Amino acid sequence: MIIVMQRQATDAQIDAVVAHIRAAGLREHVSRGAELVVIGAIGDENLLDAGHVEILPGVERATRVTKQYKIVARALHPAGSVVKVRGVPIGGEQIQVIAGPCSVETQAQMDEAAAGVAAAGCRLMRGGAFKPRTSPYAFQGLGVIGLEYFQRAAQRYKLPVVTELMDVRMLDTFMEYDVDVIQIGARNMQNFDLLKEVGRVNKPVILKRGLSATLSEWLMAAEYIAAGGNHSIIFCERGIRTFETAYRNVLDITAIPALKRETHLPVIVDPSHAAGKAWMVPALAQAAIAAGADGLLIEMHPNPCEAWCDADQALAPDELQALMRTLAAVAAAVGRTL
Amino acid sequence: MIIVMQRQATDAQIDAVVAHIRAAGLREHVSRGAELVVIGAIGDENLLDAGHVEILPGVERATRVTKQYKIVARALHPAGSVVKVRGVPIGGEQIQVIAGPCSVETQAQMDEAAAGVAAAGCRLMRGGAFKPRTSPYAFQGLGVIGLEYFQRAAQRYKLPVVTELMDVRMLDTFMEYDVDVIQIGARNMQNFDLLKEVGRVNKPVILKRGLSATLSEWLMAAEYIAAGGNHSIIFCERGIRTFETAYRNVLDITAIPALKRETHLPVIVDPSHAAGKAWMVPALAQAAIAAGADGLLIEMHPNPCEAWCDADQALAPDELQALMRTLAAVAAAVGRTL
Amino acid sequence: MIIVMQRQATDAQIDAVVAHIRAAGLREHVSRGAELVVIGAIGDENLLDAGHVEILPGVERATRVTKQYKIVARALHPAGSVVKVRGVPIGGEQIQVIAGPCSVETQAQMDEAAAGVAAAGCRLMRGGAFKPRTSPYAFQGLGVIGLEYFQRAAQRYKLPVVTELMDVRMLDTFMEYDVDVIQIGARNMQNFDLLKEVGRVNKPVILKRGLSATLSEWLMAAEYIAAGGNHSIIFCERGIRTFETAYRNVLDITAIPALKRETHLPVIVDPSHAAGKAWMVPALAQAAIAAGADGLLIEMHPNPCEAWCDADQALAPDELQALMRTLAAVAAAVGRTL
Amino acid sequence: MIIVMQRQATDAQIDAVVAHIRAAGLREHVSRGAELVVIGAIGDENLLDAGHVEILPGVERATRVTKQYKIVARALHPAGSVVKVRGVPIGGEQIQVIAGPCSVETQAQMDEAAAGVAAAGCRLMRGGAFKPRTSPYAFQGLGVIGLEYFQRAAQRYKLPVVTELMDVRMLDTFMEYDVDVIQIGARNMQNFDLLKEVGRVNKPVILKRGLSATLSEWLMAAEYIAAGGNHSIIFCERGIRTFETAYRNVLDITAIPALKRETHLPVIVDPSHAAGKAWMVPALAQAAIAAGADGLLIEMHPNPCEAWCDADQALAPDELQALMRTLAAVAAAVGRTL
Repeated sequence: MIIVMQRQATDAQIDAVVAHIRAAGLREHVSRGAELVVIGAIGDENLLDAGHVEILPGVERATRVTKQYKIVARALHPAGSVVKVRGVPIGGEQIQVIAGPCSVETQAQMDEAAAGVAAAGCRLMRGGAFKPRTSPYAFQGLGVIGLEYFQRAAQRYKLPVVTELMDVRMLDTFMEYDVDVIQIGARNMQNFDLLKEVGRVNKPVILKRGLSATLSEWLMAAEYIAAGGNHSIIFCERGIRTFETAYRNVLDITAIPALKRETHLPVIVDPSHAAGKAWMVPALAQAAIAAGADGLLIEMHPNPCEAWCDADQALAPDELQALMRTLAAVAAAVGRTL
Repeated sequence: MIIVMQRQATDAQIDAVVAHIRAAGLREHVSRGAELVVIGAIGDENLLDAGHVEILPGVERATRVTKQYKIVARALHPAGSVVKVRGVPIGGEQIQVIAGPCSVETQAQMDEAAAGVAAAGCRLMRGGAFKPRTSPYAFQGLGVIGLEYFQRAAQRYKLPVVTELMDVRMLDTFMEYDVDVIQIGARNMQNFDLLKEVGRVNKPVILKRGLSATLSEWLMAAEYIAAGGNHSIIFCERGIRTFETAYRNVLDITAIPALKRETHLPVIVDPSHAAGKAWMVPALAQAAIAAGADGLLIEMHPNPCEAWCDADQALAPDELQALMRTLAAVAAAVGRTL
Repeated sequence: MIIVMQRQATDAQIDAVVAHIRAAGLREHVSRGAELVVIGAIGDENLLDAGHVEILPGVERATRVTKQYKIVARALHPAGSVVKVRGVPIGGEQIQVIAGPCSVETQAQMDEAAAGVAAAGCRLMRGGAFKPRTSPYAFQGLGVIGLEYFQRAAQRYKLPVVTELMDVRMLDTFMEYDVDVIQIGARNMQNFDLLKEVGRVNKPVILKRGLSATLSEWLMAAEYIAAGGNHSIIFCERGIRTFETAYRNVLDITAIPALKRETHLPVIVDPSHAAGKAWMVPALAQAAIAAGADGLLIEMHPNPCEAWCDADQALAPDELQALMRTLAAVAAAVGRTL
Repeated sequence: MIIVMQRQATDAQIDAVVAHIRAAGLREHVSRGAELVVIGAIGDENLLDAGHVEILPGVERATRVTKQYKIVARALHPAGSVVKVRGVPIGGEQIQVIAGPCSVETQAQMDEAAAGVAAAGCRLMRGGAFKPRTSPYAFQGLGVIGLEYFQRAAQRYKLPVVTELMDVRMLDTFMEYDVDVIQIGARNMQNFDLLKEVGRVNKPVILKRGLSATLSEWLMAAEYIAAGGNHSIIFCERGIRTFETAYRNVLDITAIPALKRETHLPVIVDPSHAAGKAWMVPALAQAAIAAGADGLLIEMHPNPCEAWCDADQALAPDELQALMRTLAAVAAAVGRTL
């Protein structure tokens, strides 16, 4: 920990900081500059609380040097990790596109959707049975029956299923229905009790970034899952909240290289929620792959005009097929395959 | 709903929009301007989905006219509501300051804290038994034993207790321990299952604003609680996330008059979490009251230097007393009492 | 203009709004819904001020329907425009990469830089003679002598030059030194007097987006230039300011498709300033082209370790060459050429 | 400067950083922790560029320890400064309210406005002759004739005048018309050539915060003015840009105590531009004084309904008078006078 003292700090104040450092079991390193005194605390930083140090008289600020995430950090696992979902690798040379409707509506809709996903060459399918909606009066998802429709449709094409878990009390049901990948939504990125629970099961987890979560908070949220023993975590960038009102979110493409430098885990992108409009999805999907993403989560509906939610952001099956062709070319341009 | 057509929209496209409006059970109103055609859809807007309208050919954009929140809206309840907590009114002429430590640590600490809260003239007490922490390796709160310490300390001074509920599975325990006010934290503002559950009990709820929640989303989160039957909701502004790094959050003082115009429910402010530093708390607390807040949620610790978490943002008991004197004068200046 | 009345608006208030609309020379269209009255004002919206309407009693809000930008709008010029710089087209099928150092330092440095730019296959060169620096104590650019060094170096390779104009009083000097493209920096995007002046000359202008400018403000800034008669405007996205501190800015890739839908003018991207770090530049540059950008503005220094400013964000000449090869493949993948 | 090395940094890399530090004329201090090596560079930090250090192999990050602003820093001038404007003190015990219309319209309007300002007990007057407008088609201010109207009206009541300078070429005119306080608007906060010029004259300057400027950038912008010799600088917080769309800006009340800790110069607040709506102005003005602001800049128009710009944010003369009464009480509550 680096402790910068105020300009006018006295020797007694410096001594008190040193005593505080030693009491915590660390060693100090006092460096007297022309204008300021800087104190380094050497040893296990977790034993020293920056907040406590900052209220000691004469202290300007205290800053940690090491990072708080361990298991998910690339530093301890320099090679990238590959998360396997029923044999499908996420995080390697091959890029995965997970496609499907925003919400499960009917068996027929899911059957058509699964056919479209498979026809486009995607190897995993998404669909929501439990939907987080801003309004309590909006459609909240079909619930358990939705999981049934989804699995029945997906199994015909051998597509592993990805679906969102919102309520910790539903985890057993997800295990029972053999959900292949548990998605944690943006609004629940810091629902710590939910993170702890999915950390205890043996299922890959897609962890979406919170609307205004920093990379550091996002990595710590993943660390919650990893600390429970579940290391099969996939980060999903889905757009952040900014001042701009011309589109729903700003897809944070810079997060892709920055996050991949910090963690060994795979990073995918959801261009559909980021854009909020289907016509923007191809541009964003292409950009994500060009920037190094390991995969995409794309909304596709057999008939967008009749979708029960987020109708304006779903691609039609033929649009998904066309996009897959372009994505294959972009992937090749950056040395990957689709 | 107002539907603005694109400049080059054809008559056939306009007719299709009209047909869509009628199919949903509304009436249309087509207004042909010099440059653009604007279509009004008259009737129950909840029957028409803006997303669906926006993917119809020729549509530029569709905008709702009415608001989605009903129960919490001032429009349907022009006079302000007062939420009573064991006889203590929140939302009336009298301003309430809810003080206490960030987290429950020991019985002795809570006893001292309660004495300090009462001595400063505050009528409610706060304290956390379950703590949402960014790191899984940080102190997570004492849990149930913390509720016991808290109640034992508070009851001596007849102080109603306010504490945070993070996990929906702990709600019964909160009821058992007779928590007086359930606090929903910023990170759980859109944990919809949690909101639904607290909507079913008969306990006042403090609903903190999410780190980057708009007023509209915050009102809708309250509507989730209200829709379940629980109308005793208190909004709590606690600072928003912005680009500024000189302080933890930006206390959004503008939200106070803006929110009070939209809702009849009380609005309080947490200057401690907004600032992140104790030395800023008085300025922010005074500003909140001057701007019309109905109360404050302030961190006070009997001995901040020894606090187990957020040591740097807690006031000492004498600092709280001094602040209460200034707040009384500010309250009087704006026609309130403390 | 759409005027939504408050729920409790009286008939007299509605009549007053109608009278206000007529007095401005427009016609009204009163639409009485179940809950609210909505009034459309039909005619030239520029004659009616939303602010004035909103202070009339009983008005909830007033919203413009048409956009304020005209000359730069795609609506009036559906095909995209190509801006030619000494024969080099910006905005067509061919993508242009404008490369060069952050600041002009010496003749030798510029000679080497120009050689590197040409060797990489770029067709335009950038370099700053006048530098906007956050600190008054930082290097502010060489000034006029920098323009000389730059032109001498660039002319050997027939590279048109792009350089930033900060001070309106230097415009004549820029014309004298025959600068090919005038760059307006992010901090000056709403320096309206500067915009007006460059609107009066016959030189292409690169207009960078302000750090937190909305698309709408950016388009209006371009309209300032266009209104003066200069329609050779190139938009340049360079990252926006957000809450994230892990990197300098967030490159707003979503702005590319969104802006191209609104304007017929070319849109390029500066990945160097967005990232702030050279190691991120390739990922962002590739993403920009994949998302549909018409070009890039990339910092390259013959010897980054010795650069006088922003050393950490410049590519070395061989890194630029490698990037150009990847960009050519990405461009081909999305149907463009480099 | 604190230089944190990467985990896997080699001894040779550490030696290279040390050599770099020494070459710049500073001394090093190498501190080997359990996980990381941290190097302190001791001496004049301005001789060492963090960007250069960060591209040295093995370096994780480099952080300055001292601040870049000197003249405006409180550290070198612990007591607060008072800026006097024709005898009126800004920054002392007495709070100053600068009131007047958004823009100068006619002589009659300014005469009425001046009468209203004086009647309310304000001691300075504001008014815009040159207006920064988002649209080139909007009213841009009366220009020089506006300065004449303004001075004629204000002199009758001996009110010093505050008006905005946008174009560096108009500075001589401002001096000629004896403007008392030059206002630099939010959009020009980093128009460095303009800052340098007002730094050379002997006139108080109000420096508004940029829409998304950090405190650090704002302090550096003031340092530009101060470095030229003009130390009569008044900071003006006017709301920042965030994700919230329910109001124009978020008034950053936290900036008041935070900025006053960093600088000895006065800090005032503009609640009118922050709110964008007159009905919110009293709440924000009261909050600003309660938080410790040294003054306010408030829009007042003799007849808001007829204002030529920003009609919806101006107070009427009687509203200003009522607000002044409340502000006097709030000022007294926090130990100030009005």
